[in-house]
Amino acid sequence: MHDPDTIARDYLAVWNQPDAAQRLSQLSAGWSDAAQYADPLMAASGRGAICDMIEQARTQFPGHAFSLRGKPDSHRQFVRFSWDLAADDGPRVAGGTDIVRIDDQGRIAEVVGFLDS
Amino acid sequence: MHDPDTIARDYLAVWNQPDAAQRLSQLSAGWSDAAQYADPLMAASGRGAICDMIEQARTQFPGHAFSLRGKPDSHRQFVRFSWDLAADDGPRVAGGTDIVRIDDQGRIAEVVGFLDS
Repeated sequence: MHDPDTIARDYLAVWNQPDAAQRLSQLSAGWSDAAQYADPLMAASGRGAICDMIEQARTQFPGHAFSLRGKPDSHRQFVRFSWDLAADDGPRVAGGTDIVRIDDQGRIAEVVGFLDS
Repeated sequence: MHDPDTIARDYLAVWNQPDAAQRLSQLSAGWSDAAQYADPLMAASGRGAICDMIEQARTQFPGHAFSLRGKPDSHRQFVRFSWDLAADDGPRVAGGTDIVRIDDQGRIAEVVGFLDS
């Protein structure tokens, strides 16, 4: 059984990983090969494309990091959690809520993200 | 292109429909035949099973109705909206946020629901 807190923290660690090779390694460990990602601004299919997409997103917010907001919840193969994006000690520049589908191996198979106002 | 407000209002109208035959007719119009539904308390697959599931949920809250909370948002084939459940002029007894996947024909193919505290 997957633990929603671990899923959420590992997920944000992927977004916060500055090294692309390390990030791809984290994706290989925790995401299925054909994982799908879609939010209002970006979409990608497969670990490699998702790794590149995160790289591009990170270049837009140098010095910023994603952090968990509130407590993840979960039922069946689904996990929901919210996050904030902010620079060190800076104000929140974005926030969102992601819904993650976990596959039978406990890996992330799909992410659908929304931005919160 | 689907309109998120219409999707959300039609969705809640299905839940608020007391007549099972009418509800199945609404499901046939707006949901795909093999639609999937899952929230923390219930899950069902296919229009008929979803129609029965809603019947059972409704019997637990006689005189209550679902109403839209806030504004639906959407990107690509996904719609997100929040709802409240309350009796007429009564306090909210439950609330949640649902994520809906729309198929190529503009019909609901999947609902993943979460309860909000």
